[in-house]
Amino acid sequence: MLEELKKQVCQANLTLVERGLVIETWGNASAIDRTSGNVVIKPSGVPYDSLSYKQMVVVSLDTGKPVEGDLRPSSDTPTHLELYRSFKSIGGVTHTHSLNATAWAQARREIPALGTTHADYFHGPIPCTRLMSPDEIRSEYELNTGKVIVERFSRLDPERMGAVLVADHGPFTWGTDVARAVDIAVMIEHIALLALRTATIEPYPKPVSRELLDKHYYRKHGSSAYYGQGS
Amino acid sequence: MLEELKKQVCQANLTLVERGLVIETWGNASAIDRTSGNVVIKPSGVPYDSLSYKQMVVVSLDTGKPVEGDLRPSSDTPTHLELYRSFKSIGGVTHTHSLNATAWAQARREIPALGTTHADYFHGPIPCTRLMSPDEIRSEYELNTGKVIVERFSRLDPERMGAVLVADHGPFTWGTDVARAVDIAVMIEHIALLALRTATIEPYPKPVSRELLDKHYYRKHGSSAYYGQGS
Amino acid sequence: MLEELKKQVCQANLTLVERGLVIETWGNASAIDRTSGNVVIKPSGVPYDSLSYKQMVVVSLDTGKPVEGDLRPSSDTPTHLELYRSFKSIGGVTHTHSLNATAWAQARREIPALGTTHADYFHGPIPCTRLMSPDEIRSEYELNTGKVIVERFSRLDPERMGAVLVADHGPFTWGTDVARAVDIAVMIEHIALLALRTATIEPYPKPVSRELLDKHYYRKHGSSAYYGQGS
Amino acid sequence: MLEELKKQVCQANLTLVERGLVIETWGNASAIDRTSGNVVIKPSGVPYDSLSYKQMVVVSLDTGKPVEGDLRPSSDTPTHLELYRSFKSIGGVTHTHSLNATAWAQARREIPALGTTHADYFHGPIPCTRLMSPDEIRSEYELNTGKVIVERFSRLDPERMGAVLVADHGPFTWGTDVARAVDIAVMIEHIALLALRTATIEPYPKPVSRELLDKHYYRKHGSSAYYGQGS
Repeated sequence: MLEELKKQVCQANLTLVERGLVIETWGNASAIDRTSGNVVIKPSGVPYDSLSYKQMVVVSLDTGKPVEGDLRPSSDTPTHLELYRSFKSIGGVTHTHSLNATAWAQARREIPALGTTHADYFHGPIPCTRLMSPDEIRSEYELNTGKVIVERFSRLDPERMGAVLVADHGPFTWGTDVARAVDIAVMIEHIALLALRTATIEPYPKPVSRELLDKHYYRKHGSSAYYGQGS
Repeated sequence: MLEELKKQVCQANLTLVERGLVIETWGNASAIDRTSGNVVIKPSGVPYDSLSYKQMVVVSLDTGKPVEGDLRPSSDTPTHLELYRSFKSIGGVTHTHSLNATAWAQARREIPALGTTHADYFHGPIPCTRLMSPDEIRSEYELNTGKVIVERFSRLDPERMGAVLVADHGPFTWGTDVARAVDIAVMIEHIALLALRTATIEPYPKPVSRELLDKHYYRKHGSSAYYGQGS
Repeated sequence: MLEELKKQVCQANLTLVERGLVIETWGNASAIDRTSGNVVIKPSGVPYDSLSYKQMVVVSLDTGKPVEGDLRPSSDTPTHLELYRSFKSIGGVTHTHSLNATAWAQARREIPALGTTHADYFHGPIPCTRLMSPDEIRSEYELNTGKVIVERFSRLDPERMGAVLVADHGPFTWGTDVARAVDIAVMIEHIALLALRTATIEPYPKPVSRELLDKHYYRKHGSSAYYGQGS
Repeated sequence: MLEELKKQVCQANLTLVERGLVIETWGNASAIDRTSGNVVIKPSGVPYDSLSYKQMVVVSLDTGKPVEGDLRPSSDTPTHLELYRSFKSIGGVTHTHSLNATAWAQARREIPALGTTHADYFHGPIPCTRLMSPDEIRSEYELNTGKVIVERFSRLDPERMGAVLVADHGPFTWGTDVARAVDIAVMIEHIALLALRTATIEPYPKPVSRELLDKHYYRKHGSSAYYGQGS
C-alpha cells in the first residue's frame, strides 16, 4: 500500500543525506496520507546506503501502531504523529541534527530574521521550544517532544513557519508534502549558518524590518507573489 | 539579437553557481549593450541546471520592458537597470547571496580593508548602504534598491570600487564587462571570509595603511601597474 | 600471527584518514589480543597511501617490546599500552589530532554535554586531563601520557566514556574493539565542532539536563535500549 | 640551465595550488642553486593550469636581474632574494595568501604555540613582522618586505623557525629545499586554523609549556629524534 508515498519518503530521506544534513543515522522524514490516516516513515537505525522504499514503515495516525512493514519505525515517530495531528494542513515532516541548526538549538535560541535570505523562506524568527521537564523526558519522551513543539506554536501559523528548533536537540521541519519539508530542512541549515556568521561579526545583530520581511516573504509566497515564472 | 552577449550572460550566471556563490536561485548576472541601450539578464527563478543562453531576457534600459524573450526577467532587474543608468562606464552587473558577504551585509557593516589581499582588488573598504525606509520597500522596492546603492556612491568612484553590500540583503558587483563583475563577486566573498576570520582573532582589526592600500592596488591597476606579464 | 587483528588495525588506521581525522601522520590505531597479551599497532611515521596490514607491528603488553615486525611501532605505543593495562575491558584504541577535538584540548577544556547529539554517544562531558609536569614530560613522556589519562578516569567509567582530551595535545578514544574506537574518534570530532559552534552563538552554553542525557544515552546503550532494529 | 631545479619549483607551485593555499594567483615558490648563485622562480601572474617548468624564470642572486627566460619573474622576487641572501642555509622559499595564516597576519599577531601539533613543526610561536613605514612601502617595497622579515629574525634561528607572517599581508616559508618550504606552507595554514579554533573556545589560550614544546620538536627534529623509522 501507499507505494508512491513510500517512494517519496525514501527519496526525501536520501536527499537529507545528500545535502549533508544527516550525521550518522540522525535524520528521518515522513509523509501522511490524510485519506487513510496512515503515515509513512523511515525505519529506525537502518543504514542509508542500503535504504529501499520497500523498507518504509506504515503506521496509523490514530493508534501509532505499525499497519505494514516488518521493521521498527523511527524512534521519533510519536513526534511526527503529534505534528500531523495538530498541524492539519501539513503533509510531510523531517527531523535532522544538521550542524548549525543544532548549534542554535543547543544555544536554546531562536534564529533571528536577519535579512532577505531568511525572509524569502521564513516569515519571522525560527522559534525554539522551552526545555522539557524531567517528567516529560522520562515518560513518553518522543510524544512530549511533539507536544512542546505544538505548545510553542500556540500563537504561530505552521503554514507560514515551517520549522522549529527543539531546545538542546535539533530542528524539525514540515510542509505541504515531504519534498517541501526537505527543502525547508535544507534552508534552515543554511540560514542557521548565515545567522551564526553574522553574529560572529556583530554579536547582537538587529533583525530585519517588518517591511523588508513582508516584502521578501510575499514576493515569493501567496497570491501577490511575483518571483519566478508564475504557475 | 545580442547572441554573443546572451552567451556571456548565461556563462556568467553558471560561473556564479560553479564558484559556490549562488544558494538556491539567489543570484543573477546581466550585461548591457550600450549601443542599442538593451540589457541582457537571467530569467526569474529558472533552475540553473537547465539554463540555456537562449532563455536570457532582453530588456530596454529606457523603459525597463522586455524587448525579447518569453520569460519574465529576474525580479532584481530594476536594480540592475538603475546601476547601468547611473554608472555609465560599467558593462556587467551581478547579485548574489554568497554566504560571507551576506553576513557582513546582515551585520550592516562595510568590509574593512585589512590587508594586501583586499587591496589587490578593492581600493578601500567595501561600502554598505543605509537601511531602506518602509516607503522605499513597499513601493518600487527593486528600483529603490538601486537608488540606495547609487546614493552610497555619491562620493565613491564605481570604477575603483566594483562592489557594494546592500544592508540586510547581500552584495552587488559590477565591472567593464560581465566576466569582470563575476570575478569581483568571487573576490568579495573571499575577502568577506578573510575579514571575518581576522575579526575572530582580533575583534577590532585595524585597517591597512593608505600607503599599502595604494601600493597593492596600483601594482595591479592603472598605468603604473607592474604585476603580471603586461599587455 | 594475529593476521585478522592486523587487518582490522590497518583498516582502522585507513578509516581515520578517510574520515579526515588524520592530519599529516598524526594518527594511530591499535587493538589488543587479550589471550596472548599482544597489541597490534601502526608503525611510526609510515605514509598512509602505502600502508599494508603486513606492516602492522606486534608488541607485548607486558614488556612493551616488539615481538614481530621489522618496523618501529608508533611512538605513542606506551600510551596505548597503559590504557590496555588499566582499562581491562577495552579492545581497541585510537589517537588523532583531529581539528576541533584538538582545539578543545588546546583550550584545556572538557567538551560540555550540550544536547542529544552528544548524549547519544557520550554519557557526560568529555573529560580533559591535567597538564603534565616538566618531569613527566622529560622522561617516559608517552607512558606518562597514559598515566594522566588513567588518573583522570579515577572516578569515571571507561565503558561509558570512550574518549578523553589530553591537554595541549589531542583526543584518545577506545572501545570494545578497534572499529568501535574509530567510531568514537569520528564522533568526538563532530561533537567538538558542534559544541564550538554552539559556544560561538552563546559563549557559556548550559549543559543538557541529567534526564535528557540519560534518556538519549540509554535509548541507544544498555539493556533498555530501544533505538534501531534490536539485535 | 637548472632544468631539475625548474621542475622542482614548478611542482612546488602546483602543490601550493593543490593544497588549497593559493587563491587566484597569490602564491609563488622559488629555489636557489647556491653554486651558481641563481634563483629559479615562478613567472608573475601566469595562470596555474597552463604552468610548465620551462616557464620558470632564472634570476641572479647578486643583481636580481633575469639571466634566462622571456617572462617577467614574480613581483615578489626581491623578497625571495633578500631571504636567500640573509638566511644562508635555506634552499627554497614560498609565499601564499592562505586563508587562516593571512587572517593572523591581518590581525598583526604571532601564532601562539598552543599544543603538540604546533610543536611538531615549529619551535615556538610563529613570528609576525612589524608594520612597514610609508617610505618602506613607497620605494623598493618588495625588497623592504624581505628586510622586515630579516629584522624580525635578528634573534631567531631560521633553521628552527621556517615561517613568518608579514603584517597585513601573509605568510612566507622556507626550508632546506623548496619541497620542505611547501610542507611548512601547508603546516602553517593548518596551525593557523587550529589556533583560531582554539581562540574561539578560549579567547586567551595559554601557550604550551617549554618542556612540551621541546619534547615534541626534538622528538621529530635533530640528532635525538625518535619519531618515524629513522634514516
